[in-house]
Amino acid sequence: MKPRLFTPGPTTVPEETLLELARPVTYHRSAEAKAILGEVTEDLKYVFQTSQPVMTLTSSGTGGMEAAVANTLAAGEKAILLTAGRWGERWRGILKAFQANLVVVEVPYGKAVTPEMLEKALAENPDTKAVFATLSETSTGVGHDLEAFGRIVAKSPALLVVDGISGLGAMECRTDAWQLDVVVTGSQKALMLPPGLAFVSVSEKAWKKIEATPIRSFYLDLRRYKKALAESDTPFTPANTLIKAQRVSLKRIRAEGIENLWARHAKIAAACRAGVTALGLKLFAERPNNALTVITVPAGVDGSATLKKLEKQHGFKLADGQDNMKGQIWRLSHMGYTDAFEVLGAIAALELVLHESGFKLEPGAGVAAFQREYAKK
Amino acid sequence: MKPRLFTPGPTTVPEETLLELARPVTYHRSAEAKAILGEVTEDLKYVFQTSQPVMTLTSSGTGGMEAAVANTLAAGEKAILLTAGRWGERWRGILKAFQANLVVVEVPYGKAVTPEMLEKALAENPDTKAVFATLSETSTGVGHDLEAFGRIVAKSPALLVVDGISGLGAMECRTDAWQLDVVVTGSQKALMLPPGLAFVSVSEKAWKKIEATPIRSFYLDLRRYKKALAESDTPFTPANTLIKAQRVSLKRIRAEGIENLWARHAKIAAACRAGVTALGLKLFAERPNNALTVITVPAGVDGSATLKKLEKQHGFKLADGQDNMKGQIWRLSHMGYTDAFEVLGAIAALELVLHESGFKLEPGAGVAAFQREYAKK
Repeated sequence: MKPRLFTPGPTTVPEETLLELARPVTYHRSAEAKAILGEVTEDLKYVFQTSQPVMTLTSSGTGGMEAAVANTLAAGEKAILLTAGRWGERWRGILKAFQANLVVVEVPYGKAVTPEMLEKALAENPDTKAVFATLSETSTGVGHDLEAFGRIVAKSPALLVVDGISGLGAMECRTDAWQLDVVVTGSQKALMLPPGLAFVSVSEKAWKKIEATPIRSFYLDLRRYKKALAESDTPFTPANTLIKAQRVSLKRIRAEGIENLWARHAKIAAACRAGVTALGLKLFAERPNNALTVITVPAGVDGSATLKKLEKQHGFKLADGQDNMKGQIWRLSHMGYTDAFEVLGAIAALELVLHESGFKLEPGAGVAAFQREYAKK
Repeated sequence: MKPRLFTPGPTTVPEETLLELARPVTYHRSAEAKAILGEVTEDLKYVFQTSQPVMTLTSSGTGGMEAAVANTLAAGEKAILLTAGRWGERWRGILKAFQANLVVVEVPYGKAVTPEMLEKALAENPDTKAVFATLSETSTGVGHDLEAFGRIVAKSPALLVVDGISGLGAMECRTDAWQLDVVVTGSQKALMLPPGLAFVSVSEKAWKKIEATPIRSFYLDLRRYKKALAESDTPFTPANTLIKAQRVSLKRIRAEGIENLWARHAKIAAACRAGVTALGLKLFAERPNNALTVITVPAGVDGSATLKKLEKQHGFKLADGQDNMKGQIWRLSHMGYTDAFEVLGAIAALELVLHESGFKLEPGAGVAAFQREYAKK
């Protein structure tokens, strides 16, 4: 059986990137290491669509999120949290640990926070220092309208801080043009690397706030990363083999072109949604994003058992819902290196397993609908 | 030319570990992933010589050090810092960022903090909550007597918190028997992995203090790691390919046996010191440790230029002094996978380069002295 990874992080990593990871370890303070970090930083700026330096942290994505909070907010300062799922809740956990004065705009799982909700919260709280949002809410498949959020927040003194961990690279995100002040992402999603690195961009507006804020971390002090990066260096011993491998995957993204990458994700996501819908299944997200497709488990079907069968019988590893959502949804990633034919295969496998379990469907309906949508110009 | 890494982190990584890194990425919440983390944790307990769970963090060693500070100390609480070099200064930086009330016991670079100094500081500051020490001060080559420190601190209510980043595995360190309350290490030293993971052990005494201390981090909240580890899991998406590869290197350590590993490092370090001394060179550390040998650059020799020649002509990459020590010392690591014959080669290369530059020495004196010492029973 061939194992196939469709979890919304980690995602599959290109073979040439994996081979880079097997190369002998080198010193992280050499001229060669600095040249590599310099290249990676340039390529990250391209992926983020920003002219500001993008900092590389050795941590999970959550470490990057914590850096965003610890650097931009003093204890007791007001923050608006926009939450539509588990990853909005991750912001809440960090913000509470850092004693933010929280105003929460919350929508049920599956729904998206609207620009109007943000506009209202910001009008009611003119003393807000920062707004925390999620680009792709991976727990539900919802994508947020960061372009609209950016327009709204830019009119205020507040910063817009974005968890772009599973969205960046998989859906349009223009850091500078959309006026996103801090954007965090991780290596293990559309950037086609194993987990272990977080990347953080900071706007000029955000640097001003950071420099006026007492720092509450040493390891996550972004000023140290900025200073080191001015010499193409890192403040602490980084996961340098991951950085070298990130260069390889970023070259692949550069070669494809960021707009082509977004378009490819959009096309595969549209085909996947068409396939899923043609099977008689429902999409869970009211505003689905292009990083992953989240499917509502139909009545009478055991969600978790179906995923186990998919993996055991056909090698396809999709993700279950998290926490309370377990057994309620299926999450299928089409980020990064995953291509259309692999997603087509996943639809086929899902058809087979559902058909076998007695769920009413027309074999071939899903893959045909996928193909029809994908063939469109 | 064959590149040879002798920097005191990163160190060379066994081939079978590198190959593990090139394997396809898998999901980090699977039963297989949990079984791997469970094995790694057991093997880390063996390396640390502790019965307490050892937590795996995705971060640089400094992230592990910050976890130790953020979890054990409330703002304003008194801490004694024992510092003998740059890595003691790293503790100082973190402790200041976390507003510790600092009592500093400082010795010049090259010297070691003595148990008597600690005893005096602790007697004068009975309200001390924690003592911060360094096992191997990699910036100078000094090793500290943690066994004695442990005996002294155990008599007080304070915790003993140890940076074991470059020492653990390379020199005797018995976490439980020596009563070390928190021990931090990194993956890229004697544990034979690239950088990217930090490991932290916590004694029962330290857990009591942690549970009574308001947490000042979310990502580095050790209580979250402990809770997740009870189910062989991690609280945040970990660098799971590094964890899988760590398992491979830990199996190698298990097969060698921890006491044999310490003895091997001791034997190679003694031979290295004999070789260096026979060349007419001086050791920089008054209490040298077995992880690395630090050599004082002799008068009339350009320290940094010699290292460049060593690398360019013979492929040997040693480390220069850091900050103010640049050009003053050479740092040669013999940690982890590096064996006696490779260190012998480094002595030979150093002989050649020094001889060529006009430094007075008898070619062969260094390698012969190395060999004589190494051949001893």
